[in-house]
Amino acid sequence: MPSGHSVPVFEDVGGGVTAPTGFSASGVHCGLKPEGRLDLALVDAGDRVPAAAVFTINRVAAAPVVVSRRHIADGHARAVVINAGNANACTGEPGESAAIATARALASTLACDPGDVIVCSTGVIGVPLPVDLIVAAVPSAARAATRSGAGDAAAAIMTTDTFAKQAAVAFTYDGARYTVAGMAKGSGMIRPDMATMLGVLTTDAPLTSSACDAALRAATTTTFNRVTVDGDTSTNDTVVLLANGAAGGEPIGPDAPAFAHVAEALRIVSERLARMLARDGEGATKLVTVTVTGASTEADAELAAFAIADSPLVKTALFGGDANWGRVAMAAGKSGAAFDQSALAIRFAGIEVCSKGTAVPFDEEEAAAALAADEVSIAVDLGAGSAAVTVLTCDLSYDYVRINGDYRS
Amino acid sequence: MPSGHSVPVFEDVGGGVTAPTGFSASGVHCGLKPEGRLDLALVDAGDRVPAAAVFTINRVAAAPVVVSRRHIADGHARAVVINAGNANACTGEPGESAAIATARALASTLACDPGDVIVCSTGVIGVPLPVDLIVAAVPSAARAATRSGAGDAAAAIMTTDTFAKQAAVAFTYDGARYTVAGMAKGSGMIRPDMATMLGVLTTDAPLTSSACDAALRAATTTTFNRVTVDGDTSTNDTVVLLANGAAGGEPIGPDAPAFAHVAEALRIVSERLARMLARDGEGATKLVTVTVTGASTEADAELAAFAIADSPLVKTALFGGDANWGRVAMAAGKSGAAFDQSALAIRFAGIEVCSKGTAVPFDEEEAAAALAADEVSIAVDLGAGSAAVTVLTCDLSYDYVRINGDYRS
Repeated sequence: MPSGHSVPVFEDVGGGVTAPTGFSASGVHCGLKPEGRLDLALVDAGDRVPAAAVFTINRVAAAPVVVSRRHIADGHARAVVINAGNANACTGEPGESAAIATARALASTLACDPGDVIVCSTGVIGVPLPVDLIVAAVPSAARAATRSGAGDAAAAIMTTDTFAKQAAVAFTYDGARYTVAGMAKGSGMIRPDMATMLGVLTTDAPLTSSACDAALRAATTTTFNRVTVDGDTSTNDTVVLLANGAAGGEPIGPDAPAFAHVAEALRIVSERLARMLARDGEGATKLVTVTVTGASTEADAELAAFAIADSPLVKTALFGGDANWGRVAMAAGKSGAAFDQSALAIRFAGIEVCSKGTAVPFDEEEAAAALAADEVSIAVDLGAGSAAVTVLTCDLSYDYVRINGDYRS
Repeated sequence: MPSGHSVPVFEDVGGGVTAPTGFSASGVHCGLKPEGRLDLALVDAGDRVPAAAVFTINRVAAAPVVVSRRHIADGHARAVVINAGNANACTGEPGESAAIATARALASTLACDPGDVIVCSTGVIGVPLPVDLIVAAVPSAARAATRSGAGDAAAAIMTTDTFAKQAAVAFTYDGARYTVAGMAKGSGMIRPDMATMLGVLTTDAPLTSSACDAALRAATTTTFNRVTVDGDTSTNDTVVLLANGAAGGEPIGPDAPAFAHVAEALRIVSERLARMLARDGEGATKLVTVTVTGASTEADAELAAFAIADSPLVKTALFGGDANWGRVAMAAGKSGAAFDQSALAIRFAGIEVCSKGTAVPFDEEEAAAALAADEVSIAVDLGAGSAAVTVLTCDLSYDYVRINGDYRS
């Protein structure tokens, strides 16, 4: 069998956005975060390249979202600049000018068009962005950008994240070696679609603009768009994909044989980052996967899965390690998904706790031990069809309240 | 001006469900709650009388809801029996038999038809109801029922409530004296429509069955249905109205001149109880009123108000006394309500913090002092129309996590 027709092996290659050939990145301190912490990240594709982006669906969209939507409209970009510490949201006309000034500063340094710079911000809403700090730091960020700068970039975009989130996979197809990588930050106000989430995905595969768009939308639908921490939706959500083609070869359009494999690599990277987002949800003590099967439609499965994943009563029970399946039944029941309660089945960590809508005797100690793990699954069968959806979330702990009860000060 | 055409004065008369003439009530210990705490409540109208009820919209409806829906279908009832400590939800056929057995036991004691008994349960989901305890205690509950038993009844229906919730108002109209009263319990899993909420409303006004139904639905729409503690919807929500006509006079149908006044009294009682539910939300440190004005439709106003009231990020900021209006803008923006962010205005406790979608300088100390009060208002003007809605909620505290992280044990 020619290698061109085998299913590629996706290898974990470590690192982040600079794992694909030709990308450089940096993270520097511009002064938005205290104590010299990194707060300005740069990812540079090396040239104007095919790109795509998806943005928040919140009607209150931050200035960088407004500006970046315009900049990505032509399907091309060269670089992404991200500041943490200030969301530049609800900042009106001055906020938009600040986002434009940021793009211009980087364009001037890289000698590219400002329209090829994607700008992202994350942090507190409603405070004017001290854009002078950013503009002053952009040249040093550009100078600092190297092939080994992915870690600094991933660290610089963190807000309440407790760890930097990166992933990279590579595969060989038809004689060519392609790498797809990414970084992301969470970690509250996550849902839908995506998160208070910023993500930059990079690949050296020669995707066309339309292939970038198709692959990015497909990947986000089942990964970033199925993460929820608290049901809140950020004003700033942005995921960008840059495809610089440095791996060589003919352009890969949506119909090319290689497309499906690059798209799958992108999905794998996105899923890894999405799992990190859920695991690192504000105050989270565990990663929770909620899988709803037996729904009559995928929309119903999604309704039920999100209702369960967003339920404060389910999330606090998980924090307490309590196999309180009645709350799961309650959340499924309020979701609007169609099902008959007498067909409902629920498993916690593989242990059947509810069948035909009523209790199944189970070993509480075994369940408590399973729920104490740092990853817990809830599986719900609605018994109404064959559609299934998995949503990633976390528990709701004292620390969520602590972190968000005193964010600004 | 004849008294029949003046607007009546609604006087607070204290007490609860037995304030109207002819009602008796009791609260006893049947063994579902530990340590001899009251856990079985009875409200008796004295005879088969016009009645109405509204129930949870959760697809997973508890057995007592299924049974009581049948019993209220004829627009009449005599008594309501409520147990706390076990929701009799997700209990299948045995659960339904238990609810029927409860109704039969009370009917046998009162010498009435089982179909005239409304049964309610509240507590943990998915645990078989020890109905023998209830059946054994029903005769003593009936013997204990007196005109002074309202307080015991209100105490017996509490779960995680920290105080019993009662209200009663009376007014004179066209020479007749009418009293409307009620009791309710919360206090998590509240929304929509109603709450993990059980409520019993009583009146001695001679309402007809259809007047009961119309008045109850009108009152709940703007009161119990606009309370949210955590966005979760109980499997057991029930509000019952019994109208025994003991005040005398001609029956009051929906078109009678007195109807609007009785309905207003019912709304006042319901609103007082709804405010108590929000104030006593699990772990709540303050009552929060979220008023959205300037919406293009009432549905949009409700979407935005509930999105704000249910946002964990807004609720934790309120717990922390933080005037973090950016989160309010975020929640309004994700709600689906139509508006232009450049028209948005937000006030915390009357203090303008956002105008035209951007920050307004305000005195942080003054705001912190206002947010430290035990009742806080958030007012949001969408600038898109003239519809308005107020939703009642509470903050999200460490205690919510503590209470719900370890409910069952």
